[in-house]
This record gives sequence, C-alpha cells and structure tokens, in this order.
Amino acid sequence: MRKAVVLLSGGLDSATTLYIARSQGFRCFCLIFDYGQRHRREIKAAQRIAQIANCKLQIVKIALPWKGSSLLDKKINIPLRVKGIPSTYVPARNIIFLSFALSYAETINARAIFIGANALDFSGYPDCRPEFYRAFRKIIDSGTKSGAKGKKIQILTPLIKKKKAQIIKTGVRLGVPFEFTWSCYRGGIRPCEKCDSCYFRAKGFREAGIKDPLLAERQGDCSCKKI
Amino acid sequence: MRKAVVLLSGGLDSATTLYIARSQGFRCFCLIFDYGQRHRREIKAAQRIAQIANCKLQIVKIALPWKGSSLLDKKINIPLRVKGIPSTYVPARNIIFLSFALSYAETINARAIFIGANALDFSGYPDCRPEFYRAFRKIIDSGTKSGAKGKKIQILTPLIKKKKAQIIKTGVRLGVPFEFTWSCYRGGIRPCEKCDSCYFRAKGFREAGIKDPLLAERQGDCSCKKI
Repeated sequence: MRKAVVLLSGGLDSATTLYIARSQGFRCFCLIFDYGQRHRREIKAAQRIAQIANCKLQIVKIALPWKGSSLLDKKINIPLRVKGIPSTYVPARNIIFLSFALSYAETINARAIFIGANALDFSGYPDCRPEFYRAFRKIIDSGTKSGAKGKKIQILTPLIKKKKAQIIKTGVRLGVPFEFTWSCYRGGIRPCEKCDSCYFRAKGFREAGIKDPLLAERQGDCSCKKI
Repeated sequence: MRKAVVLLSGGLDSATTLYIARSQGFRCFCLIFDYGQRHRREIKAAQRIAQIANCKLQIVKIALPWKGSSLLDKKINIPLRVKGIPSTYVPARNIIFLSFALSYAETINARAIFIGANALDFSGYPDCRPEFYRAFRKIIDSGTKSGAKGKKIQILTPLIKKKKAQIIKTGVRLGVPFEFTWSCYRGGIRPCEKCDSCYFRAKGFREAGIKDPLLAERQGDCSCKKI
C-alpha cells in the first residue's frame, strides 16, 4: 500500500484532503504542528479526525522564537475581511510545514504529501496559491536524496481550485466527520462566526445547501448525514 | 543598516559565512537549530561565535518525532568516506532550516539569508548543491508576503563553489575565531579526526598551509593568527 503524509490542521479542508487521500488508496500518516498558535482546539480536532480515520498522527512541536502574525501574537486582534494579505498570515508557514512533511515522507518512504491548500475561498495567503506548489515541487527534485535518486515524492493539492461548497460536498460524500473539525481562528467554546475562517466556512455550507454539523449538532439538527 | 539572517551550525563554513555577511555591511541575526542532533557542541560553538561577532543568536527548538539519519540516531554508526549520499544525510534538513530562516527574515524585515552551503569539499548532500538554492529562491517569490509585494529576500551562498582551503583563507583574513568552531560529527571532548567532516576540515587546513587552531591550540601552536 502506497504511503502518504497528510498535513492536518483540524479544519475542514485538511480533513477532506485526508479522506480524499484515503479514497485514492494511500495509507496516510498525518502531521500537525504545535507552533505556538493562539489556541489548541485545532490540535485536538486533528487528533480526533486522525483517530476516526484510523491514521497515525505525529505532532511536531516547534518553539518559534518570533511571532509576526496575529495567529501567534494574542496582543494583535484577528482582522475581519481586510483587503490584501491579512495579519493572520504566518511568515513562511506552509513552507515550514511542507519541509517537515517532506522530511517525514523521505524517512518513512512515502510517495506523496497531501495538503489541503485552497486558492479560491481563502484569505489571500501567498502560500496557498498553485504557483507556490509548482515551485516547491522543484526543490524536492533538487534538494532531497529521493529526488537525487529519481524517486519522486509528489505534492498533491486536491482542493486548490475548488470552491468551499464543492469541498464540503466532497467531504460529505466521503464521510468526513465535519462535526469534529475546527476552522475558527479564535479558540472559544464555539466558533466566533465572525473571523475570515468562520466566514468562508459558513459561506461554503450555505452554498452547498448543507447545515454545518459543528453548529447544527448543538441545535440537534445535522443535515449532512441525510445526503 | 540592511539586516540579514545567517544560518549558523557551529562549523567553520557557517562561521566564515557570518563574517562575510558582516563584511558586506549586513546587521546579522543568527539562527541555529536544536533538533535532536547527536551532541550539543555545535550549539555551544554557535553561541560562542555569535557572541564574539556581537550578533543576536536565536535557537529554534524542534522536537522531531522521526530520525532517518545517523546524525539523529545514536544507534547508527557515523559512516566514513562512503560512496553516494551517506547516512549522515538528514532528510530535508536544509529545506527546514531555510524555511525557518525565511520566516524569521520576513518577521524582522531582513533583506537576505546567508547559508554556508558548499558543494565542493562536502559529503554529497543534495541540499548543498547550487540547483537546490536556485529552486528555493523561486518559492520565496511565490510563497511569501514579501515575494507577493515584490520585496525580494535573497538567499546568498557565498561559499557554494569554494574549496575548503579557500574558505579557511577567507575566514583567517576576516578574523573568524576558528578555534571556537566545531565540525566533528561526534560530540567528544576533542574532534575524532576520522569522520567525513573532520576529514574535509583537516584537508582544508592542510591545503591552506595553516594549522587548525582548534587542534593547534592544544599544542600551544596556532599559526592562523600569524597570517
């Protein structure tokens, strides 16, 4: 069985990506990062999702000595619908995450890395765009032992050009436990329903004509299971 | 004063690179990684060098949950002069290091990242070759806020095509405190003088016609200061 490393973030995109990788016959090894983010809800969500999907999850602990983002620095407010790249951008975050995924993939002899990056319903982060992934693929060929030996490790971004509504429909079809995913930038008891991440999630569920089970469950009404 | 992030490893290449960056008028911010390597001598060496050069040093602590290299796994012996890429290769190490350097550079608004990679007197690591750095430069343009805004962060590899002897001569000219650098893969009281890293260091000093002050100092005879 081909192995794949899947980057989990606890959100709905990465959970759907995991289920897509599984549906393609990959044995999945998940990764999440404990890098000083504002809250630990996303790590708990990733643990639950990996457990349900019956996949190994590795947590990489990084003590980042700098901040430079409102996702790392609680003194900076989370912005709402700003023009351009918002302060939630973490400098080089996906480059760091992918480089660890690559290290893990080489170590366990995995054939692919899956990441749930999405360049449509997103906050404008440059490291979510297709051109970044095209560039990253080239450093695998030139900078790794696998690449030097001609054993390519693929970077797969199955959601990159999908609307959030399409992602949700795919996830529902594959049985993604959306009720355990966490998208909100804030780490409250329930999603704030205001931040960019909550906004795109709500828009996606609305456009898909599905109630968000994370919210619906609390009202005793989860329509996603009916599809 | 332009800022630069300099990757230090405690060895002579990275120390020389720091002094080259300083000589080019950069205000240098150094980085080293505590990632579970076999010994802590290289971290201590980097601390000493940064202190002498009067530069800030950040130590990034990473709890890597996998090994995959004899530099991380003490159960694997350090190989001596093997053909091809040796087991001291750490999967994706320079990609990980550069991605952190990039994150730090974006955060402090640095204009350049210096890394002392060398593709001549080296152990054959793919992430020390010029083609890897050419590829990495492209991900800065496509995957960072700085790149998206047209503010390029340069990756500079001043030693990439230099022989070890040339590096040593440059370092002596710039006043690099070679007596505090540490190259040996093993973490003994003194260098093993057997591993690849000791071999290339000794060859370099021999070809430069200079006694290694790290060894010479113990014999009360340090010729590097005489040049």
